[in-house]
Amino acid sequence: MSTAKIAVMGFGVVGSGTVELFYRNKDIIEKRSGTSIDIKYILDLRDFPDSPYRDKFTKSFDDILNDPEVTVAAELMGGKTFAYDYTKRLLSRGKSVVTSNKELVATHGAELLRIAKENGCNYLFEASVGGGIPIIRPLHKCLAANRFEKISGILNGTTNYILTKMIYEQMSFDEALAQAQALGYAEKDPTADVDGHDATRKLCILGSLAFGRHIYPEYVHCSGIRKITLDDVEYAENAGYAIKLIGLIENTESGLVATVCPRLVSVNNPLSGVNDVFNAIAVTGDAVGDVLFYGRGAGKFPTASAVVGDIIDAVKHAGRDIISLNWSDSENSDFIRPYKSAEVRMYVRVHAPEADSLKPLITSLFGYVDFIPRKRRSEDELAFITPSLVESEIDEKLAQLSKSAELKKKIRLL
Amino acid sequence: MSTAKIAVMGFGVVGSGTVELFYRNKDIIEKRSGTSIDIKYILDLRDFPDSPYRDKFTKSFDDILNDPEVTVAAELMGGKTFAYDYTKRLLSRGKSVVTSNKELVATHGAELLRIAKENGCNYLFEASVGGGIPIIRPLHKCLAANRFEKISGILNGTTNYILTKMIYEQMSFDEALAQAQALGYAEKDPTADVDGHDATRKLCILGSLAFGRHIYPEYVHCSGIRKITLDDVEYAENAGYAIKLIGLIENTESGLVATVCPRLVSVNNPLSGVNDVFNAIAVTGDAVGDVLFYGRGAGKFPTASAVVGDIIDAVKHAGRDIISLNWSDSENSDFIRPYKSAEVRMYVRVHAPEADSLKPLITSLFGYVDFIPRKRRSEDELAFITPSLVESEIDEKLAQLSKSAELKKKIRLL
Repeated sequence: MSTAKIAVMGFGVVGSGTVELFYRNKDIIEKRSGTSIDIKYILDLRDFPDSPYRDKFTKSFDDILNDPEVTVAAELMGGKTFAYDYTKRLLSRGKSVVTSNKELVATHGAELLRIAKENGCNYLFEASVGGGIPIIRPLHKCLAANRFEKISGILNGTTNYILTKMIYEQMSFDEALAQAQALGYAEKDPTADVDGHDATRKLCILGSLAFGRHIYPEYVHCSGIRKITLDDVEYAENAGYAIKLIGLIENTESGLVATVCPRLVSVNNPLSGVNDVFNAIAVTGDAVGDVLFYGRGAGKFPTASAVVGDIIDAVKHAGRDIISLNWSDSENSDFIRPYKSAEVRMYVRVHAPEADSLKPLITSLFGYVDFIPRKRRSEDELAFITPSLVESEIDEKLAQLSKSAELKKKIRLL
Repeated sequence: MSTAKIAVMGFGVVGSGTVELFYRNKDIIEKRSGTSIDIKYILDLRDFPDSPYRDKFTKSFDDILNDPEVTVAAELMGGKTFAYDYTKRLLSRGKSVVTSNKELVATHGAELLRIAKENGCNYLFEASVGGGIPIIRPLHKCLAANRFEKISGILNGTTNYILTKMIYEQMSFDEALAQAQALGYAEKDPTADVDGHDATRKLCILGSLAFGRHIYPEYVHCSGIRKITLDDVEYAENAGYAIKLIGLIENTESGLVATVCPRLVSVNNPLSGVNDVFNAIAVTGDAVGDVLFYGRGAGKFPTASAVVGDIIDAVKHAGRDIISLNWSDSENSDFIRPYKSAEVRMYVRVHAPEADSLKPLITSLFGYVDFIPRKRRSEDELAFITPSLVESEIDEKLAQLSKSAELKKKIRLL
């Protein structure tokens, strides 16, 4: 039996985890795949003279591209420049590529999938969403008989860690962020996480797979968690909700609505109990109903678990595109519906002198409203939850209310 | 493009759901599979003169077996007699078979997988565990890089419904069973569900996949929920646990320990919050850590969702065995470790006059023990949780205790 040769590109956290896991579990990996597999190259510009794998390192991408023995490469470099170029060139030569690079898949997935298909190979990215949680293959394979109605998920571990600290330990956003950074959960520049860009990329990948058309990040309304305060966390809790950063894509008669934003999640929804750096993705299909996937959404070995799983599948299917995930490109966003046109319930917090006196006005504007009790509430503050209304109508009513009160916060409900 | 022809065998709940779902979502099923597919035969001995699919019905299995156009058959008949015979004959002819028949897979899986491999076709059974919840393919594909440490799950919806009613509505076992039967969740003869046989079959399938050797039902220690009383439910709740029927397989240095039995599950474990007819499966792998899969574990369309997902995969891979799940047969059970030799914590309930006077004896037997408070406790009853000890040692200590008290119940902790 010949040995399948693979390449690992990028020897950072995920890359080194992939190599380490591969050799640690090589016996069961080969048993399960029914194939002998070995890593022939590791691509990185840095030197690793003390690595047990030092003989495999190369600084030249061409070594991998031009080696006919290499049938599968794992692109674990991240970013869009070299990763995009290398992936295109590998796929064009019929070499399968597996990746954890959510940014690349969310931006160029449709094109890269097309190139893979044209060249009889596969582009696989189980590791791009939810770390080690199986979600791409279950969505694409196991649930392929379903019309999808909705996908909602906690897709970013860093923000979920921060919100968990705010909810359970009454830390402020800044304190919780600092702790996340100290523990290595958040980067020095936390923008991609806390402003929702990372979750948006993952939602794009899930939505494109589920609905068959490329959902680009710019099609998604995205806002992060920087403005969530402990006041909001406490009001939410008193009303029976937890605040979570939720990626949500819903299929409505007039198009898809795609948002990443903080939401009040009912304690009756399993997503409300997903804490710390854990991720969870809930999928609603017309046949299966609700299914939920839960686990560690990031980290060296959980992500490597997904990468090596894809490597095994790619090796088994080398030279055939039959496992290719697939979605068509979208030349315009006419299948996306403006999120302001969708119905939503809204949590609202306002300031005004003797705020309770606003209740009749609020009720006359919105009809039935849930006013939220708060321990230690100051008299100049009031929080409530609107009934389900088209969001642009809520905005109009809030504009009227703002003549009598200062609008401090609004947060959508899930 | 030629049209792939498939057969559906058995037109009961799952069979009719499969046919209905297939035609309802035929457009997206064909788009996702990239193949034109049609159902050519439906096998059932009954007549369905009013069915919109009446032209497809046959009473002759040979029509399917001998039709070279048919490449995939869904065996949804259940049982082991005809299903076993038909499946073997189809696979021997190189026709792939997909099934929801957990009994057949748990009993003859190793043999049927071997026949499929020898004949270049596939035997797929995503629907056999967890209804529509994706678990077989995630375990076998996405997590293939992991050494599995543990699988624990709520694998039977009927018993979980009964226990939920006992916990939240203080129904007795008999009342809850009667309600489950009235709602169609439990059969008239509920033995397979309430005595744990159904969950055992599912655990065998998961364990065989994860650990690579056929785990036959007789290798699993199995006990059901008939003897659980509201007293136990209340003590468990007071100690911070919910009682669930848990299928558990653990990989220890001296072998696999496989059990299906009621267990006290800590409220901190996500499985404790899985209620009603929902199922959930938690998998621990050395790389991925803990992942959890949750959803409706039974029902017409959730199960059909899994069946049709497998049909699509089988059609795409017709004539190749490369997606075959695989495990080797086990000629003996020497890789299974007696469950009594494993360490466990045990909930114990005893009766004795002035039961509190037993506390010094219990403490001297077990060392540190958690005595459980109970509202409205009668003085002749005492419940406690032992520390973690080898189960046979616990039994010896309980035998000593039984000289001074009547042993009413023991339930393992998860």
